[in-house]
Amino acid sequence: MENFTFQSPTKIIFGKDTEQQIGKETVEYLNNNKLNKKILLHYGTGSIKKTGLYDKVIASLTEAGVEFTELSGVVPNPRLSLVKEGIKLCKDNEIEFILAVGGGSAIDSAKAIAAGYYYEGDTWDLFEGKAAVKKALPVATILTLPAAGSEASPASVVTNTNTEDGKDRKLAIRTELIRPVFSILNPELTFSLPDYQTSCGAVDMFAHIVERYFTNTKNVDLTDEMCEAVMRTIIRNSNLALKDPKNYNYRAELMWASTLAHNGLLGTGRQEDWSSHMIEHELSAMYDIAHGAGLAIIIPAWMRFVYMNNLQRFVRFAVNVMEVKPGKYTETIDKLEHKETFDEVNIEETALKGIDAFEEWLKNINMPTRLSEIDINDEKFKEMSELCCGNNEIGGFVKLSKDDIEKIYEIAK
Amino acid sequence: MENFTFQSPTKIIFGKDTEQQIGKETVEYLNNNKLNKKILLHYGTGSIKKTGLYDKVIASLTEAGVEFTELSGVVPNPRLSLVKEGIKLCKDNEIEFILAVGGGSAIDSAKAIAAGYYYEGDTWDLFEGKAAVKKALPVATILTLPAAGSEASPASVVTNTNTEDGKDRKLAIRTELIRPVFSILNPELTFSLPDYQTSCGAVDMFAHIVERYFTNTKNVDLTDEMCEAVMRTIIRNSNLALKDPKNYNYRAELMWASTLAHNGLLGTGRQEDWSSHMIEHELSAMYDIAHGAGLAIIIPAWMRFVYMNNLQRFVRFAVNVMEVKPGKYTETIDKLEHKETFDEVNIEETALKGIDAFEEWLKNINMPTRLSEIDINDEKFKEMSELCCGNNEIGGFVKLSKDDIEKIYEIAK
Repeated sequence: MENFTFQSPTKIIFGKDTEQQIGKETVEYLNNNKLNKKILLHYGTGSIKKTGLYDKVIASLTEAGVEFTELSGVVPNPRLSLVKEGIKLCKDNEIEFILAVGGGSAIDSAKAIAAGYYYEGDTWDLFEGKAAVKKALPVATILTLPAAGSEASPASVVTNTNTEDGKDRKLAIRTELIRPVFSILNPELTFSLPDYQTSCGAVDMFAHIVERYFTNTKNVDLTDEMCEAVMRTIIRNSNLALKDPKNYNYRAELMWASTLAHNGLLGTGRQEDWSSHMIEHELSAMYDIAHGAGLAIIIPAWMRFVYMNNLQRFVRFAVNVMEVKPGKYTETIDKLEHKETFDEVNIEETALKGIDAFEEWLKNINMPTRLSEIDINDEKFKEMSELCCGNNEIGGFVKLSKDDIEKIYEIAK
Repeated sequence: MENFTFQSPTKIIFGKDTEQQIGKETVEYLNNNKLNKKILLHYGTGSIKKTGLYDKVIASLTEAGVEFTELSGVVPNPRLSLVKEGIKLCKDNEIEFILAVGGGSAIDSAKAIAAGYYYEGDTWDLFEGKAAVKKALPVATILTLPAAGSEASPASVVTNTNTEDGKDRKLAIRTELIRPVFSILNPELTFSLPDYQTSCGAVDMFAHIVERYFTNTKNVDLTDEMCEAVMRTIIRNSNLALKDPKNYNYRAELMWASTLAHNGLLGTGRQEDWSSHMIEHELSAMYDIAHGAGLAIIIPAWMRFVYMNNLQRFVRFAVNVMEVKPGKYTETIDKLEHKETFDEVNIEETALKGIDAFEEWLKNINMPTRLSEIDINDEKFKEMSELCCGNNEIGGFVKLSKDDIEKIYEIAK
């Protein structure tokens, strides 16, 4: 196990009708921190109005005496341009608190506004690493789409569609300063999600664990077991929620899983990977596809490219997560540790069966698993690989060069 | 799943040599919160001097320019009298921060000082529920004994040996205000623990999960799986650590498990029980035995008294945690849900096999599992049962009266 620091300060308020606490929670936070009772209400393109959530939020805030300025229009792969608009709105209106209502896009956009507010230069500098975030506005959230885990994470991913070279870029910042102060999670708010979004969300949260589970760090017994527990839960409950979308229990499991997959807990003490996310980010920056769908295509391809580097880990994934035979992991690993008594071919076969089973789950929840299914050809493979890492390497589990990344896009074709 | 609120704000600094960060972390906290650079250094009866930890802490604090006043002498089942001494010391020396170095006893004692500091009446009022904690000093910890989970929990348990009726009482307070602000966990500091303390610690952390795992709340899939993951980890690594006490990996798994068992995560969305703890508290208040040893005696007895109330849960425990045959839980539960195809006798047998296997583990790690083994007879059973709940009932999983509690002591005889 490696040394680590962990904390998960975001107050999670989880359950039925919890959105009605938004006014009370907000005003309590503003009072405790001696902030203006003016907030920015930040959301997407209006689905919260259709579902009635908007009215409930407004009523609760108004009752609590909180003034709000609205900024709607956040789109998937949230745009830097709207972030800049948000910063200006906050400054013009003496706003010191941002409430994001929506999924990862609305929350990431709110975090970017929060981070950019106190920075005097171009907010994009923070994403390009030219400057560090030193101070940020507090952000709170009402989550409507369990997926990104942004409701309790210290990260924000934003797309810049106005770069100097004219190419869209998608980059991330990561700092404790933008971790939400509280997040309201009501699984009922996800009953109306289209199947496609439910599935994209399940893949996104699963992917956050994949990036942590595939590690070369030895002796991380507890986090291995917990990663497996959460991955199994996501598979089981995504299958069930698609069949019965208004079932509170399945929706609740998925929603809590999305937070735990990405609040840092499952990565404690382990080297993480994150290649698949970086490779997918180039894809969704280039083609503006849903992040979850992109991950459903990239992760199996990444797995097929890297699995031989650590067969034991892929066997463990196969047996403990995808429930591929043979039997329990402990028996398998005993054999792996004494290879003389074990047929090597079976190890590779088991590892591959695990990847196949993972892909099978993706197909079951109607996710694309090849680029051709979403009409993307090989035209930009080289360009995306170059943009992804240039002459550097990415990845903790297996180091990848731009040539490797191009091969992964090829496998995903 | 039930509605819940969760946050885990304690900053965990985990790993090798991390105790050397104590000066830096402390001074950073004091500066950020504009507090005096004077702290109370609170610890036990001197084992930290023998191991050299005391010298390292002093050196780090001194280098960082932090003044400290010492209060040593915390004993297992920490005493209210020392807590009162600590409150006086803090007031007399303008101290606004407490650093506990030790196990759960030192930390609980520090939390009680922190809670009592701002309360003008008798600190015991807070434990008896006669007054609420409204404000508390910040507490930080360096953990030397993974067990109580107090390093990241909002609870403190203290024993009053000067009650009006002359009988020792052990009571708890629970408030976010006393949750440690940061905790330093270096598994190397546990290499020198006597086997008995390692085992008591393993039982204590396991017990914190038992109190949450045995629930009647349905559809808590994710937390069920996570509870099982952590319980299996504790069993495996306690067995291994006893054989190889200076193995960093086993010690690290146990140490991280102790925190996660009791920071609230594993209880999210579920009704909890806590009878075993209350029944054990009467025992250790009466006889001053180690809490972990008391739990090793009480929990199996509690299990044997209550298992028929929810056989499914005990079957799941048997199969998924104690790895009792038959096979995987999912198969078993399928059969349980369609009882017509299942032989009822086998269900009870499986449940009992699970309890037997749990008791077997306790014996393997040299814990007592009967009161007679630690020379306690039935003389005080009635008195302890009466003290435990009077005419009320305790327990979330199964409600217990004082007569039930007396029967559990009988089973434990």
